[in-house]
Amino acid sequence: MNITELIENKKLGKEHSKEEINYIINSLMDNTVADYQISAWLMAVYFQGLTVDETTYLTDALIQSGDIINLQDITAQVIDIHSIGGVGDKLTITLIPLMVASGIPMIKLLGPGIGYTGGTIDKLKSIPGFNTGLAIPDILNQLKNIKVAISTNIHNIAPANRALQLIKYTTSIMDSIPLITASVMSKKIATGAGNIIIDVKYGSGTSLKTTEDAEKLANLMIQVGKNFNKTITTIITSMDEPLGRAIGNAVEVIEAIEFLKGNIQTGDLAELSYEFAANALVTLKRYETVEQAKEYLKYLVSSGKALETFKEIIKKQKGNAKVLESYDTFELPQYKFKCTSNISGFVNRIDGYKIAYACKLLGAVRDKKNDDIDKSVGIFLNKKTGERVEEGETLFTIYTNKNEDIELIKKYCYDAFTISDIRENDKQLVYKVIRGNENV
Amino acid sequence: MNITELIENKKLGKEHSKEEINYIINSLMDNTVADYQISAWLMAVYFQGLTVDETTYLTDALIQSGDIINLQDITAQVIDIHSIGGVGDKLTITLIPLMVASGIPMIKLLGPGIGYTGGTIDKLKSIPGFNTGLAIPDILNQLKNIKVAISTNIHNIAPANRALQLIKYTTSIMDSIPLITASVMSKKIATGAGNIIIDVKYGSGTSLKTTEDAEKLANLMIQVGKNFNKTITTIITSMDEPLGRAIGNAVEVIEAIEFLKGNIQTGDLAELSYEFAANALVTLKRYETVEQAKEYLKYLVSSGKALETFKEIIKKQKGNAKVLESYDTFELPQYKFKCTSNISGFVNRIDGYKIAYACKLLGAVRDKKNDDIDKSVGIFLNKKTGERVEEGETLFTIYTNKNEDIELIKKYCYDAFTISDIRENDKQLVYKVIRGNENV
Repeated sequence: MNITELIENKKLGKEHSKEEINYIINSLMDNTVADYQISAWLMAVYFQGLTVDETTYLTDALIQSGDIINLQDITAQVIDIHSIGGVGDKLTITLIPLMVASGIPMIKLLGPGIGYTGGTIDKLKSIPGFNTGLAIPDILNQLKNIKVAISTNIHNIAPANRALQLIKYTTSIMDSIPLITASVMSKKIATGAGNIIIDVKYGSGTSLKTTEDAEKLANLMIQVGKNFNKTITTIITSMDEPLGRAIGNAVEVIEAIEFLKGNIQTGDLAELSYEFAANALVTLKRYETVEQAKEYLKYLVSSGKALETFKEIIKKQKGNAKVLESYDTFELPQYKFKCTSNISGFVNRIDGYKIAYACKLLGAVRDKKNDDIDKSVGIFLNKKTGERVEEGETLFTIYTNKNEDIELIKKYCYDAFTISDIRENDKQLVYKVIRGNENV
Repeated sequence: MNITELIENKKLGKEHSKEEINYIINSLMDNTVADYQISAWLMAVYFQGLTVDETTYLTDALIQSGDIINLQDITAQVIDIHSIGGVGDKLTITLIPLMVASGIPMIKLLGPGIGYTGGTIDKLKSIPGFNTGLAIPDILNQLKNIKVAISTNIHNIAPANRALQLIKYTTSIMDSIPLITASVMSKKIATGAGNIIIDVKYGSGTSLKTTEDAEKLANLMIQVGKNFNKTITTIITSMDEPLGRAIGNAVEVIEAIEFLKGNIQTGDLAELSYEFAANALVTLKRYETVEQAKEYLKYLVSSGKALETFKEIIKKQKGNAKVLESYDTFELPQYKFKCTSNISGFVNRIDGYKIAYACKLLGAVRDKKNDDIDKSVGIFLNKKTGERVEEGETLFTIYTNKNEDIELIKKYCYDAFTISDIRENDKQLVYKVIRGNENV
């Protein structure tokens, strides 16, 4: 076998065998092929695609490149949730207590946030003391004892996927449906959960521009999952603006806590938190319908059980649970700027990238792997898409520790808002749910 | 500007500006982009193509990456011939004396032969003493004094093309028409000749499978040439078997000498030698028709003028011109095996790759850049496609210095022949000539 020949075959649209896919990934890992051969192959895959079988082989090769966490001894019901992680995405933080309060064991290995959006791990670390470095035996113990394990992915999970991602990221091959599938599925399958909920986002700011592409991705993930005996549930959502109102680190955790306290009952964060958790419960056959599951989840919030569960989780992960009662327990920012609207009208769009860039200027997200971040700063959107703002009313609030750059940061935030006289129709937040175990 | 964005644009089929193409090639040369980004871009180009403008910009960027030989002071009529260099391709050796004897100055910079086919430079070096290392001032002097300069390309001609070729070769991107165009044209244009004859081969053993692709390549080369004020003549030929009967080094030079002596008047070598040289003369307006030019060229051979010119050239390049009278002057092989046919029938096909592989086993071609080669060994095809062979008649002859491997070498040669009862129709050798200066 020889890589040049395999590139040629894929270039011509031929199908690879399992042995060929293994050869490519093994050669990548032992450095017997050059990165420039891998990237040429990836680009050929972008144009010619991969069949379900090829995608399964690739997923398997990526899994086999590293360690596999075995959760069979814990329970077959462990759930894992993959979220793309957009601007302001704090879904993981709301979902963990909801799932665990429902008695569902949940594992979540988190990568560092690099680039435009912050990482969930950084958000959680804004809780003083919160420990996110769990070794595999700790993960297994915690899952057994408190039904939850949250950790930075310090493990050797699908290292070949990391190598491919680096190449894909710098060669603009992030939007190949089979390659996205193999990347997400390899990480999730190696992490060991039997049930995987996947957030498939489409829209202008994502790699999937249309609902057709989002459905293709969802269906391919389900088929590949089936080949590994995993139950996949995909939730296709549109996401053109930041999720929720807070963007930063501590500010996002506070918003999640407010949701768990029952103080946020409408809007995208509440809607998606209930939708994801409810679908997980239906997938696990705890409830027959999503509506029944949502009723139960709302009860967990209103009764204080969800918040109580979060308190236990924080304590077990060595964090200071006082943050739940007193937000002053978080590191606080020095300055707070309330910025008012200079026109009246309806907010019809908030550009997530501009808000994310403003956050980067504030120091809330990192550029490179080892950059320091300021967990206390962030932006709060007092108005969201679909809401009316009057001239002079607060549009957004900036929490910061520095005065310099503040005018530029304000400008990015103001520019992010599109306000006009007519209220545009809302885009449907959840486009479709495709549940793997219903297709069988 | 940023390479990831440029890859994305080409991936989506957008057109690059001149600045963008320059950025890509300059970044390749100063190592500010990774090779794996270049290969991803090349693969995107394979699928999305390049416009005539983009191909012109790329050609220019490759030219500008190195030195440019200025031949304007010599004469505007200098001719250069690009030949793909298939198995047994000794056209360059027959063409040089024909052109120079016609009074046309000719420049020929040659790369080393690597891979299946031998390099013309190695073939010429089998003439004892023949010097192929001319510095640029020597090239200019020789062109002025004896109207010919033959040299290894030891110069800094289009180094970016070499870098791209290395990546393309190992990533199987050798069959992109705009990339082939930019590669060939950049080398030829930087070499300085105003008139360029290009051998465009199509067929099973080449990167161009169809006459349509060959015509596309020919027309693109002509258009790009026009943008640099070069007169391009393309000759589209089919080449499924070795050219001529000799394959090796000294044996090929001997075959070329036999042609110049007038001893080979039919067959592919004679036909193509006259076709190429005649088209060059028509392009340069020395003759109105190819037929007239061929008459003149045949006269140059029959009168001994072509041979006499070759003698002068060998002498000027410090070679031993005695080779022309006595073939014993070449280094001689120890053994000669005449291999007879074990069936009677018509030769309908000779697989060039198998013959080339046998030559490699003999030691006649090199695998890697610095390998030593044996110039005395080779294969002679006593029968060619279209000819009848009787059982017991010699089919081919092996010239070798080693007894080991001889059975394997014989096997490859025998396997190369397809002999059957019915004589298949000949494929037309010259499919079409497209002359750039007639399209104006």
